[in-house]
Amino acid sequence: MARVLTSQAEDFPRWYQDVIAKAELADNGPVRGTMVIRPYGYAIWERIQAEMDIRIKACGAQNAYFPLFIPESYMRREAEHVEGFSPELAVVTHAGGKELDEPIIVRPTSETVIGEFMAKWVQSYRDLPLLLNQWANVVRWELRPRLFLRTSEFLWQEGHTAHADHDDARDYARRILHEAYEDLMVNVLAVPVLVGRKTKQERFAGAINTLTCEAMTLDGKALQMGTSHELGQNFAKAFDIQYTSAEGGREHAWTTSWGSSTRMVGGLIMVHGDDDGLRVPPALAPTQVVVIAIKPEVVDAVHKIGDDLRASGVRVVVDDRADIPFGRRAVGWELKGVPLRVELGPRDLEANAATLARRLSGGKSPVPLGELGAEVTRLLAVEQQAMLDGARADRDARIADVSTVDDAAAAGAEGWAKVPWDTLGEDGEAKLAQSGVTVRCLQRTDGGVPDTDTEAGLVAYVARSY
Amino acid sequence: MARVLTSQAEDFPRWYQDVIAKAELADNGPVRGTMVIRPYGYAIWERIQAEMDIRIKACGAQNAYFPLFIPESYMRREAEHVEGFSPELAVVTHAGGKELDEPIIVRPTSETVIGEFMAKWVQSYRDLPLLLNQWANVVRWELRPRLFLRTSEFLWQEGHTAHADHDDARDYARRILHEAYEDLMVNVLAVPVLVGRKTKQERFAGAINTLTCEAMTLDGKALQMGTSHELGQNFAKAFDIQYTSAEGGREHAWTTSWGSSTRMVGGLIMVHGDDDGLRVPPALAPTQVVVIAIKPEVVDAVHKIGDDLRASGVRVVVDDRADIPFGRRAVGWELKGVPLRVELGPRDLEANAATLARRLSGGKSPVPLGELGAEVTRLLAVEQQAMLDGARADRDARIADVSTVDDAAAAGAEGWAKVPWDTLGEDGEAKLAQSGVTVRCLQRTDGGVPDTDTEAGLVAYVARSY
Repeated sequence: MARVLTSQAEDFPRWYQDVIAKAELADNGPVRGTMVIRPYGYAIWERIQAEMDIRIKACGAQNAYFPLFIPESYMRREAEHVEGFSPELAVVTHAGGKELDEPIIVRPTSETVIGEFMAKWVQSYRDLPLLLNQWANVVRWELRPRLFLRTSEFLWQEGHTAHADHDDARDYARRILHEAYEDLMVNVLAVPVLVGRKTKQERFAGAINTLTCEAMTLDGKALQMGTSHELGQNFAKAFDIQYTSAEGGREHAWTTSWGSSTRMVGGLIMVHGDDDGLRVPPALAPTQVVVIAIKPEVVDAVHKIGDDLRASGVRVVVDDRADIPFGRRAVGWELKGVPLRVELGPRDLEANAATLARRLSGGKSPVPLGELGAEVTRLLAVEQQAMLDGARADRDARIADVSTVDDAAAAGAEGWAKVPWDTLGEDGEAKLAQSGVTVRCLQRTDGGVPDTDTEAGLVAYVARSY
Repeated sequence: MARVLTSQAEDFPRWYQDVIAKAELADNGPVRGTMVIRPYGYAIWERIQAEMDIRIKACGAQNAYFPLFIPESYMRREAEHVEGFSPELAVVTHAGGKELDEPIIVRPTSETVIGEFMAKWVQSYRDLPLLLNQWANVVRWELRPRLFLRTSEFLWQEGHTAHADHDDARDYARRILHEAYEDLMVNVLAVPVLVGRKTKQERFAGAINTLTCEAMTLDGKALQMGTSHELGQNFAKAFDIQYTSAEGGREHAWTTSWGSSTRMVGGLIMVHGDDDGLRVPPALAPTQVVVIAIKPEVVDAVHKIGDDLRASGVRVVVDDRADIPFGRRAVGWELKGVPLRVELGPRDLEANAATLARRLSGGKSPVPLGELGAEVTRLLAVEQQAMLDGARADRDARIADVSTVDDAAAAGAEGWAKVPWDTLGEDGEAKLAQSGVTVRCLQRTDGGVPDTDTEAGLVAYVARSY
């Protein structure tokens, strides 16, 4: 049978494009670098959103919405911020049939406009912490766009919080990192991200500290899946976010921001895909099980099976298109990465059994219809764990443990490397950059996230990145 | 006690602004006409979104996402469409530090870009109907912005569908009108909208038929809350959406579009508010019940009550801020329109009872703690129905039944009027326009939605509108 996809080994970037096209995840939009997210891709994003929203709310933040349009003057108030974003901005100069007096920036991120409103809403220490989140689209002009990974417009959540002191801001930035981002990525996406601290070189524009979740893709590169920033008092000073303390003094607040985006869908593809298409972890999958009627005479029976599974809380699609050859349909569901397929033909029905096919391992086995619900539930949990375990083993096998800058540069150009940060340092970091290798994060040797980059004994993870 | 709000009788537009500010629903954004939706306002919008999304999916549509940016050339392909939207467009001329070769439109609506992709995805009659929806922000430059009602950027859902023939498209546009829009507005928002057909004059730019849900605001004006359009083959021809029929011929598809927006929050305020603030119907309310500790010594007890109510499926907030005077807090919850307040003081607790206060009627009564859950559940249903009944009675009382164009113009300038469409006609419609009165919709005498505007015996509802 002719392969539907370019194989990963042959051409990984082309395999990635093929999966997105054939699994009907997304298309390129008409304006450079923009993206059309098709229903199946969007269903995956909606599941990520729903799971992320629960975690963000559990961390106490409330959703709100701030404008798409930001006055150009706002962007200039925080010096590092404007410098970081200027090359990527899209600018509205005309509206309502007239040239505007002041050009408008299409938000690349909302620190500035949210800073302006935090300054109005925060008066006293009683108003703190102020914990906000928004789901929105943002625009960053991309010269080398790639669907989901780097698009001129993308969808994301951006959290923005204000705190009375440094410790509270630091703790909250970490709480989001672990309880929202890491938990979602590891336990829902089955992506075993490394969490750590960015070096000064890699920090967000305007931050005093950036924490990150980094995934390893199947071609051995790194993908930043979510970041959480301590902004210190930089934005509070630029936007005058001040509060009256319990003692009666006026203090600048300490702020944080944190974001995760449709890029996570790209990470999902690049961590879990194979030559047959996408593989979606059961905890995430918008469709966990597809029930396929092999022949027309079993259509009623597959609907009954679908209803029963749905009643036990499984997300099910029934494929009753018996006029389309079974093989073609099975390939389609494999491409889309649906974790389990229940296949039913007339002889199966006679034998009161169905075939249960597993996307992850490719295995198939007959299951009595009476045991189907329990077996599906069991296998969904098994496959979820197997995907996480598999991805973690793959990741660990591709991290070279090296002790010199040269070895780090060589290994990082092929896969990942870990190297003592004391050995690497900012000079070594600059040297790695010459081979396109960057420090993805700093960790303590026990995997913990360091408080500073000057702690003794830190480990730097280095790789090329998307 | 000093009034927190301007009264409705004194100055309705100012009352509206006051409610939005004091109930912390929204603020004006820094760029002309834009809006910051604050957490409480956004929580109401999230509830509307969730309820609407369920209904749209039940009608078979799938969510997707199309780009914010549309090439200027796309807008020009459908002649009426570009004419209708040109005065309101915002235009990006610079991006990535350079002037663009072709200016980019910030979407005012997405018919054009979605038409482009429907043309790619629709090949055969088997691909139809194609039923898409997106949740997004859109931009229409507003000269006289008003929060929630008319903002330069607003949030909405826009549905776009393609069908094999006229009948299927017409039926779907109606299905959305009734099963998604009318059902949500009447049964969740408790807003008794009139549903009907727009006159040719009032149609969407590019549509062959526009159906609408019209609310009556407390100052006797009309507010368009949602519209569903048949686009005929206009966009299919402009964007070449063609399919191969079962008989093998090539046919243009028939398309529809339909939208509802954050404007619904404005409608909610203007239909249900009173001089004490907002009133939110229980079925919609993000907070259905607030449990208030009057004194510090009952804080544990109110949390227990909150947990019990939550366990029975009620959306609850516990107000344990016993250091803030009770009266001030009660006024705050009234402003926000929370349907029920459970108030507990030390003496109540001793008597094993709480006071249950109703926002709608202002009534208060003691309820034994053991009966609180049942009584809350009962009252939430009672208040929901009372709000709908009350709004319907108010509406009907303010619709003048007239039989001449002059009377329609006079009555429509004060409130609503119904007048035979045969009497009014397009000439009469033009005459009404001189007093700022428009035809809000055409209905059959039995309340049904007409198939054409030339049917005999139609009734025109006329009013001034927001």
